[in-house]
Amino acid sequence: MALDSSDKPRTFKVVGTRPLRPDGIDKVTGRARFGADIVAPGMLVGRVLRSPHAHARIVKIDTSKARALSGVKAVVTRADFGAVPDSVADVIDNCMAGDKALYDGHAVAAVAASSAAVARKALRLIEVEYEVLAHVSDVDAAMKPDAPVLHRGRQEESVPEGYSQNVMSRVEFGHGDIDKGLAEADRVVERTYRTGATHQGYIEPHACLATMGPDGQADLWCCTQGHYMVRNTCAAILGMEQGQLRVTASEIGGGFGGKTTVFLEPVALLLSKLSGRPVKMVMSRSEVLRATGPTSSSSIDVKIGMTKDGRITAGFAQLRYQGGAYPGSPVDMGSMSAFAPYDLENVKTVGFDVVTNRPKAAAYRAPGAPMAAFAVESAVDELAKGFGLDPLEVRLKNAAREGTVASYGPTFPAIGLEATLEAARAHPHWTAPLGENQGRGVACGFWFNFGGDTCVTLNVTPDGTVTVSEGNPDIGGSRASMTMMAAEELGIPYTQVRTIIADTGSLGQNEVTDGSRVTFAVGLATIEAARNAKREMCKRAAMVWGIDEEAVEWVDGAARPAGPNAGKHDPMTLKEIAAIASNTGGPIAGHYEVNAEGAGVSFGTHMVDVEVDPDTGAPKILRYTVFQDAGKAVHPAYVEGQFQGGAVQGIGWALNEEYIYGEDGVLQNAGFLDYRIPVASDLPMIDTVILEIANPGHPYGVRGVGETPIVPPLAAIANAVSAAAGVRMTDLPMSPPRILAAIQGQKGG
Amino acid sequence: MALDSSDKPRTFKVVGTRPLRPDGIDKVTGRARFGADIVAPGMLVGRVLRSPHAHARIVKIDTSKARALSGVKAVVTRADFGAVPDSVADVIDNCMAGDKALYDGHAVAAVAASSAAVARKALRLIEVEYEVLAHVSDVDAAMKPDAPVLHRGRQEESVPEGYSQNVMSRVEFGHGDIDKGLAEADRVVERTYRTGATHQGYIEPHACLATMGPDGQADLWCCTQGHYMVRNTCAAILGMEQGQLRVTASEIGGGFGGKTTVFLEPVALLLSKLSGRPVKMVMSRSEVLRATGPTSSSSIDVKIGMTKDGRITAGFAQLRYQGGAYPGSPVDMGSMSAFAPYDLENVKTVGFDVVTNRPKAAAYRAPGAPMAAFAVESAVDELAKGFGLDPLEVRLKNAAREGTVASYGPTFPAIGLEATLEAARAHPHWTAPLGENQGRGVACGFWFNFGGDTCVTLNVTPDGTVTVSEGNPDIGGSRASMTMMAAEELGIPYTQVRTIIADTGSLGQNEVTDGSRVTFAVGLATIEAARNAKREMCKRAAMVWGIDEEAVEWVDGAARPAGPNAGKHDPMTLKEIAAIASNTGGPIAGHYEVNAEGAGVSFGTHMVDVEVDPDTGAPKILRYTVFQDAGKAVHPAYVEGQFQGGAVQGIGWALNEEYIYGEDGVLQNAGFLDYRIPVASDLPMIDTVILEIANPGHPYGVRGVGETPIVPPLAAIANAVSAAAGVRMTDLPMSPPRILAAIQGQKGG
Repeated sequence: MALDSSDKPRTFKVVGTRPLRPDGIDKVTGRARFGADIVAPGMLVGRVLRSPHAHARIVKIDTSKARALSGVKAVVTRADFGAVPDSVADVIDNCMAGDKALYDGHAVAAVAASSAAVARKALRLIEVEYEVLAHVSDVDAAMKPDAPVLHRGRQEESVPEGYSQNVMSRVEFGHGDIDKGLAEADRVVERTYRTGATHQGYIEPHACLATMGPDGQADLWCCTQGHYMVRNTCAAILGMEQGQLRVTASEIGGGFGGKTTVFLEPVALLLSKLSGRPVKMVMSRSEVLRATGPTSSSSIDVKIGMTKDGRITAGFAQLRYQGGAYPGSPVDMGSMSAFAPYDLENVKTVGFDVVTNRPKAAAYRAPGAPMAAFAVESAVDELAKGFGLDPLEVRLKNAAREGTVASYGPTFPAIGLEATLEAARAHPHWTAPLGENQGRGVACGFWFNFGGDTCVTLNVTPDGTVTVSEGNPDIGGSRASMTMMAAEELGIPYTQVRTIIADTGSLGQNEVTDGSRVTFAVGLATIEAARNAKREMCKRAAMVWGIDEEAVEWVDGAARPAGPNAGKHDPMTLKEIAAIASNTGGPIAGHYEVNAEGAGVSFGTHMVDVEVDPDTGAPKILRYTVFQDAGKAVHPAYVEGQFQGGAVQGIGWALNEEYIYGEDGVLQNAGFLDYRIPVASDLPMIDTVILEIANPGHPYGVRGVGETPIVPPLAAIANAVSAAAGVRMTDLPMSPPRILAAIQGQKGG
Repeated sequence: MALDSSDKPRTFKVVGTRPLRPDGIDKVTGRARFGADIVAPGMLVGRVLRSPHAHARIVKIDTSKARALSGVKAVVTRADFGAVPDSVADVIDNCMAGDKALYDGHAVAAVAASSAAVARKALRLIEVEYEVLAHVSDVDAAMKPDAPVLHRGRQEESVPEGYSQNVMSRVEFGHGDIDKGLAEADRVVERTYRTGATHQGYIEPHACLATMGPDGQADLWCCTQGHYMVRNTCAAILGMEQGQLRVTASEIGGGFGGKTTVFLEPVALLLSKLSGRPVKMVMSRSEVLRATGPTSSSSIDVKIGMTKDGRITAGFAQLRYQGGAYPGSPVDMGSMSAFAPYDLENVKTVGFDVVTNRPKAAAYRAPGAPMAAFAVESAVDELAKGFGLDPLEVRLKNAAREGTVASYGPTFPAIGLEATLEAARAHPHWTAPLGENQGRGVACGFWFNFGGDTCVTLNVTPDGTVTVSEGNPDIGGSRASMTMMAAEELGIPYTQVRTIIADTGSLGQNEVTDGSRVTFAVGLATIEAARNAKREMCKRAAMVWGIDEEAVEWVDGAARPAGPNAGKHDPMTLKEIAAIASNTGGPIAGHYEVNAEGAGVSFGTHMVDVEVDPDTGAPKILRYTVFQDAGKAVHPAYVEGQFQGGAVQGIGWALNEEYIYGEDGVLQNAGFLDYRIPVASDLPMIDTVILEIANPGHPYGVRGVGETPIVPPLAAIANAVSAAAGVRMTDLPMSPPRILAAIQGQKGG
């Protein structure tokens, strides 16, 4: 088959339009089946007992009274999991504490019982003897040599002397000579920035239903960003072969990175194994906040030098991220992304991964990058304003572009940072007048975007509709975008294609829905699967026409004789070929498996106006505009939604959200009444401007768009608040009391 | 890749063994999720109102009171479905009566309500005005010119004058000259045989859960033999595109052909569409018996001529099958299979498809063949015994073999009939002594076996286990046999493979699990998918070794350098290649889509000893042995189970089971207390002898085995009972009163 010129620049028919989202009606009518909506006959209720202490040795757990309670079918503690491979040791210890409880809310035991009431009673009957230990919640405090230590003997050799064993590892990136660069500067800003721990705040708490038979065959339904990850992780923890565990992803009520690991799933599986019954576990909101991954809180030192004409001569940052109770904070990605928007001769970042007595951090949308951008973009803003320069011009002057050697190593291909800066500069928002107590801030943000293992299967039904089967839970609209790319490639209407999320038994390995990888990688695989199906359909048409299959091309949803045969037969549409599939060999399908590469980085620039009430310190977001390079925007409404959602989560992070721990190390705001995420009345309409700089690594030029929009807001809002309040804000969240204190401190100083 | 010689005769390592069945523990522990086990949030209960009349015009249905009842969310009648394509008109009319109710139990309306109690109350509030019409339940009565007529204007032209319009069509098969053949005979037997309508008797009643959104996207979970059939049929009825309806097959508690069509599914979908809520419908046993497909009752005239040395000179049969309320009895297959075991010069069958006021017949295991075999094999037995000939010898003398032109047209390739007859003749059962009032019967049976559209996807997980995804509900052990064939082909252990049944969104079109097609066709596709995966794995190994992929072969579960490279690298096992899949291009899979041909026919010979109590007429099965050509028996225990199950169902059909209609046309035994299927205490152990005559159409020589075992029992048992009772039995079931009456009639006569 001679394919049409679909891999050259092209006019799109479906891609770029805004069709109805496939999951929209399901979600607003309640038809969608979320994690807690799955049931099985004979199902038990699983519940978790959690540590009330921030740090405590578990001397003894006596479960005998709980086991004796009528209706209790299984009780598990960490001991019941036994030894596990190193790769999943921290994962299971986080799901179920071993020798020590490492944070308030850390699971110490779980029960499966015939009802929620019995399960609750059973939890009260479990007797845990704790030896309470000194704890540490703050990242800088945790690094001090005399800090209470969570883990001994696990510090990597990269960590220099002088730090406590809570500092698990150190990373470093950069090139050039910082001191030389700083010496060239007309001015150097050196500051420390701090951000609170924030939760992803997804609507749906973690939930799963597990059922394992005595033959070791198991099924698991759960709310997750990656059911293959769940399969592989649980199989490793429980000593199963991956093929023996079939995992189905439910509809998902948000994830934002927080559902890229397991919490309940291995526990539910083990409870099912021991009880011989299906076990359902659903977290309360309090459990979600206490025991599932918030992002790291951070403490970051930045030193940047600039010439008076706005050239950055050197950039240095030391980033200290607390990752909660186990190693693995995203300080590496923070260190890599901190200076990514800049083309710098001298740049260096050093990152420390620090454990504290808090829940283990999970990924949160562009993990690690927002805090780093907050620090760097605040300092750049301060320098620009100090010289009286336009902060957009300063960024344009120093902007990374095609050919820039990024601070973290690679040389950028075509990228869109300058385009977003130019669009911002040209936008009416930039020159709109500001009133009293109002300030405007801008900031840039960067995210890597991932690719990874991806499988797609595309089937043509007998009536000529098309089903696309992909293996990534649809969080940001992947069913819509795969449907659109398949329809585009096949030359058929959007409504003729339906995309579903296959379970792990039905499709090969897929990476987690993270790293903004899905529209890129699954899209690429969908397009290639559609091309394989087109080849097969051209072959069937060739068979009917009695000509060579190479002499058939696919144009506008139909096979056509090409070259010397052109016009000799009427085109055969997809529906016509589907109708004769059975008589020409059998069903028609296209498949594609790939470890996708070429995801293409993404940049955005945010602009925000804030008013600060000088009497109360209360900030109000007045106007917000997001400029971002999306590559080709497959479904612009979803892209805009990602821009808006990222900005709003950034607003929460900047102004309100934080984990508040008491002196006792206990979380004080484990509910949405006290942990305050932005609500509609806090927000203006978030305006969006989509730039489309084609990603050369994707047939349609698609880039990931989901994570970059949360990177600039912290800094953009801090720059705006600083301008409005007349004082540089360096600590997040910028809650009214904190802004008021800064204003008063400024006056006092 | 150079494949090993797996398509030549070979020694098997996994195929032919008897591993644990994958669904066994699930089914005995209750972990398996059957049709009624699926729930959804906000689910309604659907219930059906059924006609109490055998034949009645529906003058008016007033649903207003039911609709007004609190908790009732939707009510549907046939009018709500509107016009449908001709291909599914009878299907929907059978699911929901149109102008007329055509049988006792015919659905006339359905409701969806918030609870079963409300639904029941709603049904009582639906007012149906019937004009009761004359009815006809018996096939011969229905054919008479003055019989009450079900459908007007639908009789095919093939039907000669003189019959009522209930005779829908006529088929004819055969060759040679019957009169000439009969003239050559030394004796001619001419008799009429009758069989009752019997139900498939599956354990699990029909059940489904449907949910359709206002956007027309729908999901359906149901207990079925073919979820693709359900999808395509329901989509056609409801005017949907196939891709908009995703159907998932639940575990299935038996089907035997009775779940190869839809009953509740389109009704549940429409109720869901109208109510905007998920709707669950589960039949009671009474509904199953009254309104789902039993097999046809039949009336068959046979005329066979034989020479005194046992040569059959001519065979003629006229078969009259009532198919219930709509055309489509399996009289065509009965007519084709009647004389299939014989190599005859002169043979002719004529079949009439007749409608009656009974539920529409559905397929029942080798549909149409058991009744035909009952008639022909009874007559052959009578002739053989009349000449004092050994009935096995007579069958061997006339047996179809390779090269025989079958009565229905084709020329047989290698077949196993003679092998089964020879095995029977050599078996100790044949010569075991019989006591007083005991008789022995033998009979042969034939079934076609089907192929058809089939898709299989095989995925290699990162840890090197293998998942096979197939699209046919596992009724007879397909998960085990696909697992075995995949393991065999890949050269890995059975336990390293798991087979699952994919939904219609995850895999391409698959024919229904029927026609004994699955082990053959899905097996063939599994083997080819595994070969495609092996090719890919050889390619990956070649990549690692830096040699040409043609220079790699797959032997014993590992890629090995072949030819001039042999021994230059250590073999790479499947697990090793799986571990590096991500780094060598991505996940590894094998796919195969085919309209499978070459299923290969199947023959069996059954032998049975029966004792008849001369005082009560009660028959008792003393001993039973099944001889059947299975082709290569993939999992012999399942094959034996099929042999045993078919024999037992045949025993029920022969001795006990029948639909009993009153004068009013109402079914009198709509429950398992009155419709008596055999129980364990009625039965001896069924002995089995597997013959393995390789099917040349399958890589491993596999044939279908599931249906043939129900074909000979009716005749074999009738021959045994006739021998024991001393009187030829021609009507089924041979219940004690009927046997007693025959004995007494014989004495009286």
